[in-house]
Amino acid sequence: MKKFFLLSVIVVLCSFQIQKPTKIVFFGDSITEYGVQPNGFITLIQQRLKAEHKDGDYQVEGAGIGGNKIYDLYLRYEDDVLAKNPDVVVIWVGVNDVWHKRLFGTGTDWDKFGRFYTALIKKMQAKGIKVLLCTPGTIGEKTDYSNEQDGDLNKYSQIIRDLAKQNNCELIDFRKMFHEYDVKNNPENKDSGILTKDGVHPNDVGNKYIADVFYNILIK
Amino acid sequence: MKKFFLLSVIVVLCSFQIQKPTKIVFFGDSITEYGVQPNGFITLIQQRLKAEHKDGDYQVEGAGIGGNKIYDLYLRYEDDVLAKNPDVVVIWVGVNDVWHKRLFGTGTDWDKFGRFYTALIKKMQAKGIKVLLCTPGTIGEKTDYSNEQDGDLNKYSQIIRDLAKQNNCELIDFRKMFHEYDVKNNPENKDSGILTKDGVHPNDVGNKYIADVFYNILIK
Amino acid sequence: MKKFFLLSVIVVLCSFQIQKPTKIVFFGDSITEYGVQPNGFITLIQQRLKAEHKDGDYQVEGAGIGGNKIYDLYLRYEDDVLAKNPDVVVIWVGVNDVWHKRLFGTGTDWDKFGRFYTALIKKMQAKGIKVLLCTPGTIGEKTDYSNEQDGDLNKYSQIIRDLAKQNNCELIDFRKMFHEYDVKNNPENKDSGILTKDGVHPNDVGNKYIADVFYNILIK
Amino acid sequence: MKKFFLLSVIVVLCSFQIQKPTKIVFFGDSITEYGVQPNGFITLIQQRLKAEHKDGDYQVEGAGIGGNKIYDLYLRYEDDVLAKNPDVVVIWVGVNDVWHKRLFGTGTDWDKFGRFYTALIKKMQAKGIKVLLCTPGTIGEKTDYSNEQDGDLNKYSQIIRDLAKQNNCELIDFRKMFHEYDVKNNPENKDSGILTKDGVHPNDVGNKYIADVFYNILIK
Repeated sequence: MKKFFLLSVIVVLCSFQIQKPTKIVFFGDSITEYGVQPNGFITLIQQRLKAEHKDGDYQVEGAGIGGNKIYDLYLRYEDDVLAKNPDVVVIWVGVNDVWHKRLFGTGTDWDKFGRFYTALIKKMQAKGIKVLLCTPGTIGEKTDYSNEQDGDLNKYSQIIRDLAKQNNCELIDFRKMFHEYDVKNNPENKDSGILTKDGVHPNDVGNKYIADVFYNILIK
Repeated sequence: MKKFFLLSVIVVLCSFQIQKPTKIVFFGDSITEYGVQPNGFITLIQQRLKAEHKDGDYQVEGAGIGGNKIYDLYLRYEDDVLAKNPDVVVIWVGVNDVWHKRLFGTGTDWDKFGRFYTALIKKMQAKGIKVLLCTPGTIGEKTDYSNEQDGDLNKYSQIIRDLAKQNNCELIDFRKMFHEYDVKNNPENKDSGILTKDGVHPNDVGNKYIADVFYNILIK
Repeated sequence: MKKFFLLSVIVVLCSFQIQKPTKIVFFGDSITEYGVQPNGFITLIQQRLKAEHKDGDYQVEGAGIGGNKIYDLYLRYEDDVLAKNPDVVVIWVGVNDVWHKRLFGTGTDWDKFGRFYTALIKKMQAKGIKVLLCTPGTIGEKTDYSNEQDGDLNKYSQIIRDLAKQNNCELIDFRKMFHEYDVKNNPENKDSGILTKDGVHPNDVGNKYIADVFYNILIK
Repeated sequence: MKKFFLLSVIVVLCSFQIQKPTKIVFFGDSITEYGVQPNGFITLIQQRLKAEHKDGDYQVEGAGIGGNKIYDLYLRYEDDVLAKNPDVVVIWVGVNDVWHKRLFGTGTDWDKFGRFYTALIKKMQAKGIKVLLCTPGTIGEKTDYSNEQDGDLNKYSQIIRDLAKQNNCELIDFRKMFHEYDVKNNPENKDSGILTKDGVHPNDVGNKYIADVFYNILIK
């Protein structure tokens, strides 16, 4: 009798046992920073999780800071990401590493881009964090590779693709996806206004597109 | 009878009349400067003219200076081209206008590129010179548009294509030709060594290729 | 008697003969372009000429366009300056030749700066125009030579000083004057706000200062 | 007797007790990397330590890598410096953070320069390491602040001076020292050849000068 009572208690307790939700942190630059705004892709993911009653299973947070390059992520990783104790980290960086070469003379050498990126992945993987890598989308949406930074952006995207393979990380190839989307939806070869409002930062269509891509990959 | 004799003399003299050869000047940067070297494309054109006994009909000269951008051509046009009294001028410029942005911070703004180019064409056309425009070939021969300057080089090539149309000039689209050649002949996606020795300046294959393109267009 | 009368008329007419005023054109970049605004230094010079009843002797005009570098002046010299038929031209350029290296990657190589500047002076002097050269003032008003462009701005200023000597042109050394003024009047080592509103373009104090410098040199 | 013997043994042992020498690591870029070459300043310090019989008291090592900027030092600090278990670290960096803006478009933003530098100092100080900071010497030895990078180099030197104060680190102000030395010894205002062979890397005179400065500060 006593045994049966104890067993019952255990069963009841177990049924109340709280399953810790999977924590996903988006780690990046201004694109990620704006992702938590009302129409941002992170906000959209949170809303869809709620609508699909999965907000108990997944907790999604942004850790984006405007102007960040790969080495900025490396510097603030402990404070801004590890401190959140994430299960999954999505790294989305690269636009400023390329763009700031022209804008401020302070971009990132391609070899150092790879070196810092590798070091960051290793640090996360050592903590058991699942790491997903994203290629940068666009700096200009023209589809004939005549946006000023296209050459370098393609080069850095390829570095990220290689890094994903080398480190067994899942890859989300926004560079490829955005280009294919723009080829279909930008017949006038416009500089912006298809997936982005300024060639770089997603507009409402872009945020919806990005949110869906992430949701389908990250949420089971 | 006397009249008939005189007429005959005139006819004979006319048949010996020396036709001034068509003078073609290649006007450009280091690519053109090197064109007059032993294996350079201008030398090759001269040799082929001789071999085909057309060196009496065409006189071909180089007026290339390393590092030149469009405004350098504008500055030295009178001294280096007009002074040669050419019938045809082939303008081949643009690599440094793009490349020097990164190399020295002294490239050419795209709008000023168009403005100087237009002014140069107008000056030549006002003198009755036939002007042919060439798009720049490559800064790096990788075929997936991942050479650092590809975006900007595509942009400036398009400006030249538009200028050719606006000014009724024949266009030689080396940017397009080189890309197509490299797509076929650069399966390893190498940076150089296909048509160029360093990504920019033609190797022997490149000089032969360029010489043939020019010959077929310029020589009747 | 009749003869004497005619002679008298001629003498009287001659005494009324209108002396064509000396035409001075300021040729430069945005600093000169803004000079014709209500508080601009060209407007101030015009007002002072009027106040001192010398507006019949001197006619002062601006020919400044924002973003202009030395080669832009060379390109538009005929249309914008020679067409005004000036007696005196004040060339004030150099800020963008240096600054655009960082801003857009499209500054001017120092050797080409000298080459275009020389060609421009020669063209004007060949038309009998008196040419005055000015060194650029400041890109940042900090006085300890810690403004980012100070090194290059000093270098290009020295080129202009040398050009003035080589071409027998009067020099107005704003670089030196502004530095000395700032050393006295910028004890807090501020970036702007002493002679300029943004480190480059004169504020009201700067416009007054510049107008006085020009007036004292140009107006007899 | 037995007691006396033991005491003697202890005294003798103590007299042989090895005093761990003070380990000094020079942490920097190519200037430091070349410092361990035959005539390099680190080699000179080692030779002088030996000559003055202080090589038992001080152990001096180089940890310089060409092209390094502040964030490269941050990335490799654990492997290349902490692993050496130093008592004193001399950080000498900054030339590339400024210079690479122009050379490759990959310099370091001034605010991030301060951020990485601070993080690096904090990490070392947390391990009880004594940290000395050096300002960069020169990029060009002209003394009238007309070397292209002078403005920015002065700015970044001031950041280092401020960092030394904020973090209670000793400062070795090579920027100031080199300038004063050049003012005295470079009457022809040459670009290099006084303390450096190329404007940046010390020649024999420079290495001797630097070695003496470090020796007098670091060795008691």
